Amino acid sequence: MKSSHSFGIVGATGAVGQKFLTVLAEHRIKPSVIRLFASERSKGQKIVFDGNPLTVEAVEGADFSGLDVVFFSAGTDVSQNLCPKVVAAGAVVIDNSNAFRMDDSVPLVVPEVNPQALKRHRGLIANPNCSTAQMVVALKPLHDRATIKRVVVSTYQSVSGSGKEAMDELWNQTKGMYVPGQEVAPSVYPKQIAFNVIPHIDVFLDDGSTKEEWKMVAETKKIVDKAIKVTATCVRVPVFVGHAEAINIEFEDFLDEDEAREILRAAPGILVVDKREDGGYVTPVDCVGDYATFISRIRQDGTIDNGLNLWCVSDNLRKGAALNAVQIAETLGKRVLKKG
Amino acid sequence: MKSSHSFGIVGATGAVGQKFLTVLAEHRIKPSVIRLFASERSKGQKIVFDGNPLTVEAVEGADFSGLDVVFFSAGTDVSQNLCPKVVAAGAVVIDNSNAFRMDDSVPLVVPEVNPQALKRHRGLIANPNCSTAQMVVALKPLHDRATIKRVVVSTYQSVSGSGKEAMDELWNQTKGMYVPGQEVAPSVYPKQIAFNVIPHIDVFLDDGSTKEEWKMVAETKKIVDKAIKVTATCVRVPVFVGHAEAINIEFEDFLDEDEAREILRAAPGILVVDKREDGGYVTPVDCVGDYATFISRIRQDGTIDNGLNLWCVSDNLRKGAALNAVQIAETLGKRVLKKG
Repeated sequence: MKSSHSFGIVGATGAVGQKFLTVLAEHRIKPSVIRLFASERSKGQKIVFDGNPLTVEAVEGADFSGLDVVFFSAGTDVSQNLCPKVVAAGAVVIDNSNAFRMDDSVPLVVPEVNPQALKRHRGLIANPNCSTAQMVVALKPLHDRATIKRVVVSTYQSVSGSGKEAMDELWNQTKGMYVPGQEVAPSVYPKQIAFNVIPHIDVFLDDGSTKEEWKMVAETKKIVDKAIKVTATCVRVPVFVGHAEAINIEFEDFLDEDEAREILRAAPGILVVDKREDGGYVTPVDCVGDYATFISRIRQDGTIDNGLNLWCVSDNLRKGAALNAVQIAETLGKRVLKKG
Repeated sequence: MKSSHSFGIVGATGAVGQKFLTVLAEHRIKPSVIRLFASERSKGQKIVFDGNPLTVEAVEGADFSGLDVVFFSAGTDVSQNLCPKVVAAGAVVIDNSNAFRMDDSVPLVVPEVNPQALKRHRGLIANPNCSTAQMVVALKPLHDRATIKRVVVSTYQSVSGSGKEAMDELWNQTKGMYVPGQEVAPSVYPKQIAFNVIPHIDVFLDDGSTKEEWKMVAETKKIVDKAIKVTATCVRVPVFVGHAEAINIEFEDFLDEDEAREILRAAPGILVVDKREDGGYVTPVDCVGDYATFISRIRQDGTIDNGLNLWCVSDNLRKGAALNAVQIAETLGKRVLKKG
């Protein structure tokens, strides 16, 4: 890594791109240069960062030379096309899309879980899917202690995972329920999301699972341990920000729920809130704006010898995306991220 | 069963009580007598059934003699106190509360699953919990074919399961999000339900599970097979009507997903909608007003030898409550329910 600290953000006008700027500001990171890129139609838009208005550049045909770290969150196609070019121009790329996550030559990193994978990077580092990121933060310390064999996970994923337009759809479609004649038809989602849940995220695969479910399976293996078997059901819920997950774990060795709670309390990036009383757990709206992966409802699963259930909640725009990317950059070398 | 057909509904002003009247009307059942009971404060309220205004009577001190079938949905305490008295007065009681479900002398019945249990009734029959009812409809035909060993279920339960006040809270709290200064604080629920999910239904038990989760475990054993092990996470979602469940099943024998789909298609009370394409599945808003238990997303779970995942949706006020009770009465004897 070079000692300068110039940043680029591709997809700067999106929900995750905006959050990346917020997280940089919260970390008091003041890059010497910060350049924002988006599609042609956002060109010229002004976005204020650290008191200064920055002008959005068109990503098509942009010259990326001179940038140290470029963060991509503009969809798989844009990443597929541009990430290799930006790496060739000399930057370290942290890509939030699905384009390179399963590429053997690309580290897929959650800094609390597998920071060592960063050592072998060749300029390109992949950020995991939001639902995977928070789950592996929870799984890793438990796996280290009792060896996870199998995970059954059901998700409760917020619409911000689908981007700004999905957030607008939930907001406007819900509003339309209160005003006769102002109904809003589904557009981003194939079915109504207002006051509904949809068991479908990303495209369907031949085996009947969705790509989102496949990501949780494949990415968990790559980040934590290829021996861990995961079966997932991914569901969109009418929540703006914050993903929740009901996680059932089967271990090789017995792990008592009290010991699991202590392990999780001591683990990096985790806050345990588990009181077994009204409100003694974390919900999506509680986690918004926070950095932690919250764990609640830790309890023995007596249907198998070595089973545990838990509830995991995190801000999908932060730990699931922008925060994890900033943590990756920080882990790569503090020199890049000179604090102001 | 006597040949007359007089009905009583205790809890007639509640969400389930009202739905019981709707289901009777939809079934074109015209009782010779129908009497409505509720708490003192609803006394004198008029409710129209089959074109006639009926006057709500106070349940306290009421004389139940002369009624053939009395449906209870007024909470556990009311049932605990009154059901035995109403049975003593000569009626068959179908109780929707948790008061007698696990009582060995009381059949707990889902007519598609265990109608034979009705034979040993002594005047009192229990209706299962809403989340259990739809799940056992899905499990039974699969269990008959391949013997279920273990179920991991995560629920997405609508607020109507908590009653009318909860539906109002979701409606008003959500509305309050759009009007500054009109925020509605949580009252029925311990946390905000608008644009949020809450991993907590009914009270917490000593083992860290909730009573709702325990019900799914214990009632499934009683209704289907005591050898079936269930571990559940029950979650309230901001949906008005319709419960959804992500169900992971481990069988004794291998069951191919295509065969499972055919078995479910042929099973009573089930509609399979499973297209593996945009919208090719059922969501809660799709099921409202319908009688079926809908099954979607049927797919092999390759993490174990004999595993299957599926998504189950049903109208919790109907199959989960009022419809199931009417079906119990119908199964008891067509004579009681003379159709108009």
